[in-house]
Amino acid sequence: MNQIRIGIVGYGNLGKGVELAIRSNPDTTLAFVATRRDPSSVSLKTPDVPVYAYDDLVNHQSDADVVIVCGGSATDLPKQSPELASYFNVVDSFDTHAKIPEHFAAVDAAAKASNHTAMISVGWDPGMFSLMRLYGSCILPDGKDYTFWGKGISQGHSDAIRRVEGVLDARQYTIPIDAAIDAVRSGVQPELTTRQKHLRECYVVAKPDADLEKIEREIRTMPNYFADYDTIVHFISAEELKEKHSELPHGGFVIRTGATGENGEHKHLIEYSLKLDSNPEFTTNVIVAYARAVARLAEEQAYGCKSVFDIAPCYLSPMRREELMAKML
Amino acid sequence: MNQIRIGIVGYGNLGKGVELAIRSNPDTTLAFVATRRDPSSVSLKTPDVPVYAYDDLVNHQSDADVVIVCGGSATDLPKQSPELASYFNVVDSFDTHAKIPEHFAAVDAAAKASNHTAMISVGWDPGMFSLMRLYGSCILPDGKDYTFWGKGISQGHSDAIRRVEGVLDARQYTIPIDAAIDAVRSGVQPELTTRQKHLRECYVVAKPDADLEKIEREIRTMPNYFADYDTIVHFISAEELKEKHSELPHGGFVIRTGATGENGEHKHLIEYSLKLDSNPEFTTNVIVAYARAVARLAEEQAYGCKSVFDIAPCYLSPMRREELMAKML
Repeated sequence: MNQIRIGIVGYGNLGKGVELAIRSNPDTTLAFVATRRDPSSVSLKTPDVPVYAYDDLVNHQSDADVVIVCGGSATDLPKQSPELASYFNVVDSFDTHAKIPEHFAAVDAAAKASNHTAMISVGWDPGMFSLMRLYGSCILPDGKDYTFWGKGISQGHSDAIRRVEGVLDARQYTIPIDAAIDAVRSGVQPELTTRQKHLRECYVVAKPDADLEKIEREIRTMPNYFADYDTIVHFISAEELKEKHSELPHGGFVIRTGATGENGEHKHLIEYSLKLDSNPEFTTNVIVAYARAVARLAEEQAYGCKSVFDIAPCYLSPMRREELMAKML
Repeated sequence: MNQIRIGIVGYGNLGKGVELAIRSNPDTTLAFVATRRDPSSVSLKTPDVPVYAYDDLVNHQSDADVVIVCGGSATDLPKQSPELASYFNVVDSFDTHAKIPEHFAAVDAAAKASNHTAMISVGWDPGMFSLMRLYGSCILPDGKDYTFWGKGISQGHSDAIRRVEGVLDARQYTIPIDAAIDAVRSGVQPELTTRQKHLRECYVVAKPDADLEKIEREIRTMPNYFADYDTIVHFISAEELKEKHSELPHGGFVIRTGATGENGEHKHLIEYSLKLDSNPEFTTNVIVAYARAVARLAEEQAYGCKSVFDIAPCYLSPMRREELMAKML
């Protein structure tokens, strides 16, 4: 297989993660980075790689085998992924679960119309965790699955706190509750409320004159984000936030329990867990493995949009099929 | 999708497990059981299902969409899987890791020559654990993986003990060593010897006049099976063996640790674990999910032999692709 030339669109945490992941995958090369900022303001970690303006990408269609779209799910990806799928094979990490069918349809239409291969919602959730839910449901059909997230930083919840009046900066940790995990592992298949599954712990830097009680109350009662959870709020200094909470760890668990036998007398437990020091770097490692699959599927003219459910695992590996079978099966 | 008609070849622990698994998968039906014994001596748990003689199967080629070959890997499967792949789409659970390429080649040739779809080595190891090793190596390339088995009954090791002179019956538990698992989880990527990873605990029923010391010495020093391990031998009564050790639990762990970042400064841990009350029933549940995939691939005329690496996860599920994407991604 030739080198897979990868283009990065968007140079934030995810884009930088892709750049590092390419170094760990010797069959991939960084072709370019594209940005909506002024390209001359972007300085890469990789020497001799061009930075293009987003609007100029149409002139670089033959420069990359796959483009990884590293924008946000709220506004960037719904626009950029279908747009770019008209010119490139693309992969994104769209993670607004409720809007996946709609996003899929838009990217699929663009990719099929232009004979490209696309993948959406690649990462660990959606992504590896979705795969584990699917495998679990198929191999243990008389069962139930549970997903827990954390301990880790939720960027969406951190952003929500930053929008509260009087807040300068904040980090929010999502923490799975041990008692709930233990109950799930026991096989009793409990019904768990939102509050019973996760705790939210917030580290907040307030403005000097801010009303701390008011900030805490606003956080704790914020609908969707915090109202349904037990929430702990700590006020700390900007220095402490920087020193102790500037990394982006995350992780979680997908647990499926179920039964087999003539009368369900045999219990089974399947558990997949991740403990990640860097959420964006792990996510982009997953994305680059799937970019390899997209490049191969495009060579096979398997056009249109895919999800992790559609990709045979052998497409992810740089090894040949015979080697995989001999070494890993 | 129509009902998938499944034939079972061999009615031991695995065959009986498939029969139960079919009940948990409403889109599958038991078409027949075939045996090398006298068919009239076999009584099924499912009413109104025919039992055929193995040698008569050639006359029932149109009765099943997929046949699950439930023999042993030592002598049954190397003969039966290629033989049956000439008449049926087949799935087996061949688990002699070193001989997989050879077995694959034989089944592949038979399946391709007769336009059938086949799958070998389906279960949890080889099977789900193989998948986890493959996914782990692709999404965390700068890393290392470890597989631990147990606590569970190893039938091969139990059989080996039964062949020792003076032994009436025996069960052997493979037990992963906690200190080794903890070292792996810590991310230090230790080099572990066979002895450091697993312990072997044996429950042995001896003949009344047997030399127990001699039996224990023979077990502990048996090459390949026990010599490289710390082995504990307990002599117990036939009654105690039956009462406390007649189930077939098993399980294990696939753990991959690795690093990302500019200087490998971010550590990551991926862990997949199984805790199974019944090894054969869980194995056959996995097999029936893959039988669904084989039936679909045969409809698509994707002939030849496959492994779990070749199967896109969506083929395992009775749900439609759109439903999967909306509910599980």
